[in-house]
Amino acid sequence: MSMRVTFLGTSGAVPTTERAPSAVFLSLSPHNEEAIDMLFDAGEGTQRQMMRFETGFGVSHIFVSHLHGDHVLGIPGLVQSWEFSDREDPLAIHVPPGCREQVEGLVHAAGFQPSYPVRVHEVAPGSVALDGAGFEVRAFETNHRTVSQGYVVVEDDRPGRFDREGAEELGVPVGPAFGKLHAGEPVELEDGTVVRPEQVVGDPRPGRRLVYTGDTRPVQATVDAAADADLLIHDATFTNEAAGRARQTHHSTAREAADVAARAGAKRLALTHVSSRYAGDASELEREARRRFDGECFVAHDGQTVEVPYPDS
Amino acid sequence: MSMRVTFLGTSGAVPTTERAPSAVFLSLSPHNEEAIDMLFDAGEGTQRQMMRFETGFGVSHIFVSHLHGDHVLGIPGLVQSWEFSDREDPLAIHVPPGCREQVEGLVHAAGFQPSYPVRVHEVAPGSVALDGAGFEVRAFETNHRTVSQGYVVVEDDRPGRFDREGAEELGVPVGPAFGKLHAGEPVELEDGTVVRPEQVVGDPRPGRRLVYTGDTRPVQATVDAAADADLLIHDATFTNEAAGRARQTHHSTAREAADVAARAGAKRLALTHVSSRYAGDASELEREARRRFDGECFVAHDGQTVEVPYPDS
Repeated sequence: MSMRVTFLGTSGAVPTTERAPSAVFLSLSPHNEEAIDMLFDAGEGTQRQMMRFETGFGVSHIFVSHLHGDHVLGIPGLVQSWEFSDREDPLAIHVPPGCREQVEGLVHAAGFQPSYPVRVHEVAPGSVALDGAGFEVRAFETNHRTVSQGYVVVEDDRPGRFDREGAEELGVPVGPAFGKLHAGEPVELEDGTVVRPEQVVGDPRPGRRLVYTGDTRPVQATVDAAADADLLIHDATFTNEAAGRARQTHHSTAREAADVAARAGAKRLALTHVSSRYAGDASELEREARRRFDGECFVAHDGQTVEVPYPDS
Repeated sequence: MSMRVTFLGTSGAVPTTERAPSAVFLSLSPHNEEAIDMLFDAGEGTQRQMMRFETGFGVSHIFVSHLHGDHVLGIPGLVQSWEFSDREDPLAIHVPPGCREQVEGLVHAAGFQPSYPVRVHEVAPGSVALDGAGFEVRAFETNHRTVSQGYVVVEDDRPGRFDREGAEELGVPVGPAFGKLHAGEPVELEDGTVVRPEQVVGDPRPGRRLVYTGDTRPVQATVDAAADADLLIHDATFTNEAAGRARQTHHSTAREAADVAARAGAKRLALTHVSSRYAGDASELEREARRRFDGECFVAHDGQTVEVPYPDS
């Protein structure tokens, strides 16, 4: 499965000429199956960012972290443009508990009833928002000024490594028998010996994990959700110099985001929700985070696309 | 007074990478007074277009033509960003009859009550939406799929031309007496003769006139509103080839817009609300309009700024 993230909007509450309000596009492409495209938040202008950065418009799921305008005001425009393009596929919008009515209001803010099905689901933190083919998306509680949650995309475990040499030594003929064993089925050899999968297949390997926090203070729930995560996309509105402002507005500093990433053992950290005060130069956010986090770390920018590889590939 | 128009969004219902949804910025700067800035419609992304094209954020009035999403979905983001910038000045939003409740919903769509005053006024077609210093804005009825109206900005009449030579011949001394006469006051000369203003000042000259239609079929009310207009900004969603589609969706073709401009005797015509089908090349809209309208004519593009000069300057 390929896992491709496109940052559509990386600004804080107030956009800038370079950064649109929050939106992250994720495309999961299982082998030989159609991609499943989703959005994590959809701030004002998301539809034009999708055009600009050529993500396509095949989004089936929108996951909303919280109801501040800079995270949801792109929804009505998307709903309207899908209507104009004769969309028929259902759209699911996943929202924190108690937020359904307001989001339904946004769905209808363009003044019409979409002719394709739009369902708004409330998802409690800790529960599964989407049980997909080969992955699931779960919500986890965050700490912002309003009801808020993050989302973790967890890929199914993959089978363990196949010990090709070991299989050959046991007399398994090169060919379909290898695939059967790797898929968990025993194989009977010509001499009647049975080779069992556990003899040639290692322990299952955990699938990839991608975490999107939305706006939040640093919290233990993110550390838990991001355990060994392949990519953690974390609120990093401010530098440490504005740590008081971060506390006051229930955001995180780049240092706090880095500490969460380090405690979680995440492999890669994307800093986002960048305050307009860093419109000229956001590099200090990255420098600050690097001092606390050894993994790969970057300040996301609008249009940036990141592939999330298998950790052992 | 300087009259400056900036086209912020010139797309049809569905934006493109080059055109944002509808929004027109107008700045009226009376001599020696602060400018009065206003928006005609505010589609999704208007706030970032304002940043990009450096209009400033001093808008005091928003005039809404109708409630389709591509004309109003920028309002909640603007309301939120003004809140973040500690706006204190009141904001007036002028809307067609029966639209107040839905627009109030948009004002609160970002999930908070603005701390600066926001008033939503319903304006009946034919009545004055804003009685400003040196101008007024009136609504006129249009014909779209929903309740809709256009707006005409009418500058106050200016005094007639001052006949400088005539005044000198009558013995008026060059100096303050000229100004008094031009302002409508009689002047007594040293020999006791009284010179009356009408002896040296021509007929009052009509002020400038700017018309914004919003989305509409060609209608007589626009012809009336745009009589001798200095600038007519007219729906021109389609070319004549799609005249049926224009009728069906209650829009205008470029040819229809040009016919309205010609019948009204407008001086300049800006074609806007360009369908995404002309994303590659919108020049046919202009060619088509030019065949029916002798005045200046152009397809507006995002970021375009147009000064509206005095017709006799």
